[in-house]
Amino acid sequence: MKFAKMHGIGNDYVYVNCFEERVENPSELARFVSNRHFGVGSDGLVLILPSEKADFRMRMFNSDGSEAEMCGNAIRCVGKYVYDNRMTDKKTVTVETLAGIKVLELFTGKDGKVESVKVDMGEPMLNPRDIPVDSGKEKFINEPVKIGGEVYHVTCVSMGNPHAVTFVGNVKDFPLEKIGPQMENHSLFPNRVNAEFVEVINRSYLRMRVWERGAGETMACGTGACAVLVAAYLNGIADRKATVELLGGNLTIEWDENNNHVYKTGPATHVFTGFLDI
Amino acid sequence: MKFAKMHGIGNDYVYVNCFEERVENPSELARFVSNRHFGVGSDGLVLILPSEKADFRMRMFNSDGSEAEMCGNAIRCVGKYVYDNRMTDKKTVTVETLAGIKVLELFTGKDGKVESVKVDMGEPMLNPRDIPVDSGKEKFINEPVKIGGEVYHVTCVSMGNPHAVTFVGNVKDFPLEKIGPQMENHSLFPNRVNAEFVEVINRSYLRMRVWERGAGETMACGTGACAVLVAAYLNGIADRKATVELLGGNLTIEWDENNNHVYKTGPATHVFTGFLDI
Repeated sequence: MKFAKMHGIGNDYVYVNCFEERVENPSELARFVSNRHFGVGSDGLVLILPSEKADFRMRMFNSDGSEAEMCGNAIRCVGKYVYDNRMTDKKTVTVETLAGIKVLELFTGKDGKVESVKVDMGEPMLNPRDIPVDSGKEKFINEPVKIGGEVYHVTCVSMGNPHAVTFVGNVKDFPLEKIGPQMENHSLFPNRVNAEFVEVINRSYLRMRVWERGAGETMACGTGACAVLVAAYLNGIADRKATVELLGGNLTIEWDENNNHVYKTGPATHVFTGFLDI
Repeated sequence: MKFAKMHGIGNDYVYVNCFEERVENPSELARFVSNRHFGVGSDGLVLILPSEKADFRMRMFNSDGSEAEMCGNAIRCVGKYVYDNRMTDKKTVTVETLAGIKVLELFTGKDGKVESVKVDMGEPMLNPRDIPVDSGKEKFINEPVKIGGEVYHVTCVSMGNPHAVTFVGNVKDFPLEKIGPQMENHSLFPNRVNAEFVEVINRSYLRMRVWERGAGETMACGTGACAVLVAAYLNGIADRKATVELLGGNLTIEWDENNNHVYKTGPATHVFTGFLDI
């Protein structure tokens, strides 16, 4: 079976073109390919399929075989795959996902291949009831949250999933392993929370680390980067457009004043094409 | 660049055929391919090269870019690679390594491809001075070693590298994370030690877990499996030939009465062929 190994700032998946290949049991295949020692090694499996509602359809499966709704880093790679493999010649591509139809804008480099992709991430939700945060306030911006003996000033944003953003002086030395899980499981957050810790380099450059709900520290969290930009703007410390540096690479996040949507632009990288013995 | 991803009971490497491909900087390539998120993902890189002294030559590089002497799991895959790719039609193949020339015996399956490989692992060393163990005895067999408040009965064997083998009742529930590092760093072992803990299922089936020096628990340690069989025979609890079950799979180990050599037979598995964008 032919596949491509691609990553978006280090969030790596095995991509299978289901216009050419047939995958009988995607959950089982996802578990197999995700295992590095005995399979390929990846965060999961992405299938690229025909759609009746959009240009293409993607289905994605985590390394445990469960189906995932959408992943901002993976959908960029889908955009690169379909364009570079001449499955479309459009630079604006729609992709059906379990989280709805997403619109991608493709940017090509000198070699004519896609280098980066812009994705409409939708509108942020700021009402604590929607995020959810256990608070009677209208928005949860720069509010004190006690962890251990310390007080952290936290801003909460949902991008479909809940985020708690804290601005800190030096993010590299921040004790994320200790504070992250306490923020994730704080009684304020009935569905737990993804916890971002951010150093503001300047109004258009933010450096972040993320503690993902149920996963711990990860190299890249696309919705987290969006939440960080929104939180930084709401706190008056960044512009509406900024570079967000994550451990795995950089994303450009823009919160559009006119339609309230957040746009995320980032690289999509093809590492190798493989032929599995199955 | 074309490569193969192969593993020997879960010990996985990227294999490059240097009769066809040219690798300028193997240390750098090893670091790149070993990284799963941005590269391929493996325990390291193995180059298959021409030799003036043997049928083939292998060089192997760890994930940190350092060159390694030899790996019993990797050399089996070299045997499979050269035979399955018709680089030889011999079933007994010699391979030059930094640890000397190794002789492989290849066993093919129904499809004519190599399924398992037997490797001569040389003679075990039992003298504490050679292993090394800080002991005036002639051999170190079933000797009490105190760790925490407990006494473990340990047998020491060198297969070129030092091993301390302990027989336990139930290896699955054994607290390896706690006892392994204490055995590794015990004052008896001036060069530290690889620590194996073994459950004897019967005289020809041993189940082991290994704490590797500097690496922690791993799925497979070929020299460790050899040391385990030798230690079990010396303690009178196993025959000269037995299946050794490791987390990553099974090996057959035989300690030959006539020439004192230890032979290790195990599977070699090809998972996929890849084409890197470099």
